[in-house]
Amino acid sequence: MSAATDADLGYIESLGLEQLRTAVSDYLGRARGVAVDPSRTIITTGCTHALGLISHVLARRGASRIAVENPSNVVVRTAIERGGLNPVAVPVDGSGFCTDLLSEAGVDAVLVSPAHQFPTGAALTADRRSALITWARNSGSLVIEDDYDAEFRYDRAPIGALQGLSPDAVAYIGSTAKTLAPGIRLGWAVMPPNLYEIVADELNNSMRHVSGIDQLALADFITRGEFDRHLRQMRAIYKRRRDLLVSGLATHVPDLRVTGIAAGLHVVLQLPSRDAEVATYTQALENGIMIHPLSRHTMPGYDGPAGVLIGYGAISDAAIPYVVEQLAAAIRGADRGNGTQARRILGSKKP
Amino acid sequence: MSAATDADLGYIESLGLEQLRTAVSDYLGRARGVAVDPSRTIITTGCTHALGLISHVLARRGASRIAVENPSNVVVRTAIERGGLNPVAVPVDGSGFCTDLLSEAGVDAVLVSPAHQFPTGAALTADRRSALITWARNSGSLVIEDDYDAEFRYDRAPIGALQGLSPDAVAYIGSTAKTLAPGIRLGWAVMPPNLYEIVADELNNSMRHVSGIDQLALADFITRGEFDRHLRQMRAIYKRRRDLLVSGLATHVPDLRVTGIAAGLHVVLQLPSRDAEVATYTQALENGIMIHPLSRHTMPGYDGPAGVLIGYGAISDAAIPYVVEQLAAAIRGADRGNGTQARRILGSKKP
Repeated sequence: MSAATDADLGYIESLGLEQLRTAVSDYLGRARGVAVDPSRTIITTGCTHALGLISHVLARRGASRIAVENPSNVVVRTAIERGGLNPVAVPVDGSGFCTDLLSEAGVDAVLVSPAHQFPTGAALTADRRSALITWARNSGSLVIEDDYDAEFRYDRAPIGALQGLSPDAVAYIGSTAKTLAPGIRLGWAVMPPNLYEIVADELNNSMRHVSGIDQLALADFITRGEFDRHLRQMRAIYKRRRDLLVSGLATHVPDLRVTGIAAGLHVVLQLPSRDAEVATYTQALENGIMIHPLSRHTMPGYDGPAGVLIGYGAISDAAIPYVVEQLAAAIRGADRGNGTQARRILGSKKP
Repeated sequence: MSAATDADLGYIESLGLEQLRTAVSDYLGRARGVAVDPSRTIITTGCTHALGLISHVLARRGASRIAVENPSNVVVRTAIERGGLNPVAVPVDGSGFCTDLLSEAGVDAVLVSPAHQFPTGAALTADRRSALITWARNSGSLVIEDDYDAEFRYDRAPIGALQGLSPDAVAYIGSTAKTLAPGIRLGWAVMPPNLYEIVADELNNSMRHVSGIDQLALADFITRGEFDRHLRQMRAIYKRRRDLLVSGLATHVPDLRVTGIAAGLHVVLQLPSRDAEVATYTQALENGIMIHPLSRHTMPGYDGPAGVLIGYGAISDAAIPYVVEQLAAAIRGADRGNGTQARRILGSKKP
């Protein structure tokens, strides 16, 4: 604040503070292979915000249907719907978004999370990345890349952003919700040349611009190298927590599979059925452990495996063995219990 | 930040942090006579944001036309239009919004700035306040009260908020853009009981919630009494600046009238014509002084006086005599110059 100018604290450009757009662009180019220019980087309050703005713009330009991954985050789908687009479910398998089903979906745009699909944890394969870009170029449609969990890959260097392959066809969105904290509400959208002005205009007309003080703070944090340092530190911590959780589950519930790549802040533990999923969720809650049934994120037509999402970002190393024991007990209890009854209990709880 | 809990930095309620909603509600009840409850107080990024959210909600419920003051802020009208409502111009005179023209306007809602109408500087009279509330109750329509500049009244205690007369019929909105700084992007909407949930839901689905860190900081600032102290201090400073400006104008351009109540951060200096307004703006800009022509804020059908807006919030006391001299020179120069040419120059400049 002591270095802020009067102009920094006045109404600023709706795109965002130049020093933050420069810092973010530099980071995205360097760390994620995004083909980026600060003049096309828009500061948002996060991915939900960016998706709402982009959806409004696409809808006003005549788009009506957007392909989304099934399963995918329900909050994100609601933001799209409020923006005037109709989300169309396209299945996800172990290789990510099923691009071969794209042409028959009849959509005007696509939303994907190639780095670490939420919630299944798949990474989009190179073949499918190419197929998606080819589809976008041939149809003149927009791909929105939600670079979810890209900063936290534990087994190898992360794959670069899809956007780097075709910056004119891809809108790249990301946020600090997982890297810093959800409550900070800062993110970015790197838009193709033909869309950045109209999206910034949409932001301007709905809220003028994102918090100037938060933007100053994040610009300072990135520019001083603290953001990179923080990511390196957290990557080691989260990797250790994931390893402890995965090996604990392998010991206590050896017949169940953990799926998804070694990345992000949660694992998916596959379960035999939707009933088992709901019963396990309910039993775990009684044991003091909050997990999420996969079915919370599925759309009609989903026929993939059942499972639960187990987040490990905020559990201390020392607590993980206890958590695994409680989960294993919940799974065994659920196995003996009554799935129908559990589902009734679940239905009465706020998600 | 050192006192923030993990929950404070996670996804919070879309309404806003409870400690901020409580602090703001306490302030609004005490200082503005708002009939307020923290459970119906929504934290926004400012008045533009609040108006966009409320407009979306009203439009989805079937409203289509909203009365707005002519003249009024064009950014605000754009936010309303993007929200799906059609702004209908209702004239403003020295007593504020012309409520007698309301029934023939055929509108579903009204937006007014009763404390200090922007840009004319009128205060809504007691009779018209009653008429507005009667109209809202009889028609079952919503009045949106933009409590613009209410904190800065210099000649008397400010009139309490309209909302206090009828909390079920009035949505009250305010922000820190004038009291702290525009770049902070924090404000509030106190909604009637039947609307707060749906407006908070709209906010949630477009951006989840407003910056948690900014909310923590403002809650702390208000709770420690610093916000009230700051307002008392700034009120004295702004009053002095206004007095210097008004007496300087009386000396240097004695034939021109300064209109509007002793409040806010700008005065309106009446000019004989629209041509004089534009020529004065252009000439002042050449003299290094930025003022705004009133016509920037007028809508079709406006037939009130011409004039320019002179902001004094950010001019030091010592600079005011110089500013007045430059303005007076600009007015004399414009009087001699060519209004048509000036208008051409104006048309080529960014507003």
